[in-house]
Amino acid sequence: MKPSGNITLTSDFGLSDPYVAMMKGVILSINPSAVLVDISHNIRAGSISQAARLLHEAFAYFPMGTVHLAVVDPGVGSSRRPIAVEGKGHFFVGPDNGIFWPVIRGDSEARVVRLQDSRFFLPGLSQTFHGREIFAPVAAHLSLGKVLESLGPLIGDPVQISIPQPYEKEDALFGEILRVDHFGNLITNISSNALGRFLGSGRPRIEVGKLVVSKLSRIYGDENEGIPLALMNSSDLLEIAVNLGRASEYVGLKEEERIGAAVKISRT
Amino acid sequence: MKPSGNITLTSDFGLSDPYVAMMKGVILSINPSAVLVDISHNIRAGSISQAARLLHEAFAYFPMGTVHLAVVDPGVGSSRRPIAVEGKGHFFVGPDNGIFWPVIRGDSEARVVRLQDSRFFLPGLSQTFHGREIFAPVAAHLSLGKVLESLGPLIGDPVQISIPQPYEKEDALFGEILRVDHFGNLITNISSNALGRFLGSGRPRIEVGKLVVSKLSRIYGDENEGIPLALMNSSDLLEIAVNLGRASEYVGLKEEERIGAAVKISRT
Amino acid sequence: MKPSGNITLTSDFGLSDPYVAMMKGVILSINPSAVLVDISHNIRAGSISQAARLLHEAFAYFPMGTVHLAVVDPGVGSSRRPIAVEGKGHFFVGPDNGIFWPVIRGDSEARVVRLQDSRFFLPGLSQTFHGREIFAPVAAHLSLGKVLESLGPLIGDPVQISIPQPYEKEDALFGEILRVDHFGNLITNISSNALGRFLGSGRPRIEVGKLVVSKLSRIYGDENEGIPLALMNSSDLLEIAVNLGRASEYVGLKEEERIGAAVKISRT
Repeated sequence: MKPSGNITLTSDFGLSDPYVAMMKGVILSINPSAVLVDISHNIRAGSISQAARLLHEAFAYFPMGTVHLAVVDPGVGSSRRPIAVEGKGHFFVGPDNGIFWPVIRGDSEARVVRLQDSRFFLPGLSQTFHGREIFAPVAAHLSLGKVLESLGPLIGDPVQISIPQPYEKEDALFGEILRVDHFGNLITNISSNALGRFLGSGRPRIEVGKLVVSKLSRIYGDENEGIPLALMNSSDLLEIAVNLGRASEYVGLKEEERIGAAVKISRT
Repeated sequence: MKPSGNITLTSDFGLSDPYVAMMKGVILSINPSAVLVDISHNIRAGSISQAARLLHEAFAYFPMGTVHLAVVDPGVGSSRRPIAVEGKGHFFVGPDNGIFWPVIRGDSEARVVRLQDSRFFLPGLSQTFHGREIFAPVAAHLSLGKVLESLGPLIGDPVQISIPQPYEKEDALFGEILRVDHFGNLITNISSNALGRFLGSGRPRIEVGKLVVSKLSRIYGDENEGIPLALMNSSDLLEIAVNLGRASEYVGLKEEERIGAAVKISRT
Repeated sequence: MKPSGNITLTSDFGLSDPYVAMMKGVILSINPSAVLVDISHNIRAGSISQAARLLHEAFAYFPMGTVHLAVVDPGVGSSRRPIAVEGKGHFFVGPDNGIFWPVIRGDSEARVVRLQDSRFFLPGLSQTFHGREIFAPVAAHLSLGKVLESLGPLIGDPVQISIPQPYEKEDALFGEILRVDHFGNLITNISSNALGRFLGSGRPRIEVGKLVVSKLSRIYGDENEGIPLALMNSSDLLEIAVNLGRASEYVGLKEEERIGAAVKISRT
């Protein structure tokens, strides 16, 4: 696959320390023409599932052949493998801890290699920052056209993470909150397909925490200011929102209980 | 006008969600050579006036022909129009909600078009994220040299927002706090012209909240640490500051009362 | 020295105001091909030593000939000099307040010039934002190949800051906490050389606040979740961490006491 020249970066490094800049410096030292785009560096420390989800939501908006560097890596330096993936028309580089599983499971032809050719690493490997010393230089080499298989041997057993799926039980559809965004919107794991299959021609009653919404809106502005609503969002997922307000503050759940909270849909 | 190849981005999306990156991916898919620069993504959720002001303060430091994408868009999907503007030697793309009014009112030759040619949009339009599906691709096309009028029909009635002006009353000059910056500095809407016209050869007495300053300093370091001062800042606006301190904590106003708070100047 | 075309930016401006974007716009107006990389804009307001340290930790990961713009400048507009430095194979532009001292002291051949040729400045100099009006344009000119000495006269007395060094006293090695990172890791000023010289073949006992660690780990994952540990980090500095936790919350020190807190190593 031809590289696009773009490299995205996702991590739990935050924006105060020099860690992200070090990775960018390493990349530009190898590929001075690389175009670098941050996806997010505000992943919760160590949250592989949050990073996996965010990257899976965003990567396809980049040109085919983009390299996606993702470093949420609590196991750095242990026996967890460093990997690169070619799948869905994109490249991915990072730890083998499940962070790329949503991509790999969605592409039966995805190939995964274990990174072990140190010619593509930064000399003087530390054991606590593989983002800088393995993943950034490998991402740079991929963006220059290096072939995936030249980086290391193919592996067939990349680490998987569980991806919560909506399910039906006792005439209700159950999903969960995947993400609370900057606006306080609650993003669920329920797609329009799953919802449509369950509802048929019925109307939904949507419950999350103590919040109940009894119809599907088209846009935020369909309701008055401060009124809770539900809509299919721009990622085709059911989202609970409040027009000009923060749905996260209406559900009666503590901050740490919101992600993973159950969403129950019944037919009325 | 010849595009500069630069595209700036301003939004209320924050830096944790994938929304900004999605817009950048869409732009780079259309114009791989675009140079992307963030102005700010920390606009208060839905604050059109804050975004309008920030963009108006910053845009002219970019090369002529730069495209400025601004997405603070609480009315997304409603009847509010998507627009592109050519004015003051720059391009602007975003919702028709007043966000570009400070630019448009300052250029009698500014042209505004309603975006309605879906050939320039992302296919599969969602109704909740026009930033990604309309504004980002249109910005990319403008940065490639697409002519403004080819994007849609000219309109003559773009939405206006009120822009607070200083005024004189009972021998005093009244302005207001527009912005509290990262250093806690209070930036007013009073220019050196307005202040000079009012003061003549007099000396100012400047009041905001319970803070009173009785002269104009040249630089922050003119006063000792912790002493309030006033100066004409780098945007030629009267600014209340505290050397090595936070003026915002000296005014005796709650955080939510600071923006818009009255500034009173009298002559002594 | 040949410029790399890259310019990094470090400041205490935060990411909400338009100040960083203004500097980038000025740079791109002079050098449209400059590649801009943020190191950090979250330096504590006015903390020259924090900026100096962060920049010193990060700059060498960029290609030789990169220009590093650093603006933590509480003395802006006063008699403090604006300078540019060529040292360690890189360029540096900013205020003469010690921010580049760690670089300059490490290179006996470093050259420092006082910026005073206003042809390289933005016209209409304000006295409160030299980042935009002096440092950004000069950085752009350096990135285009302008020779250092053409920017102003060489000076031999750049401002120095004290750089805390570890020292031995009564059979113990004393260092201090330089930085608390995004993960709550405590980064000290003790290098592996200093530690090895002191320890010889002994084992360390490491104390900071009320936290005691009695061995050196290789990686975070060497200890179980929630267990404090010490390791030589990726910048070759002794670091106190907690696997999957925040060491900063284990030391029994208030937030404002952590930076600069004493680290005591004894032999056991």
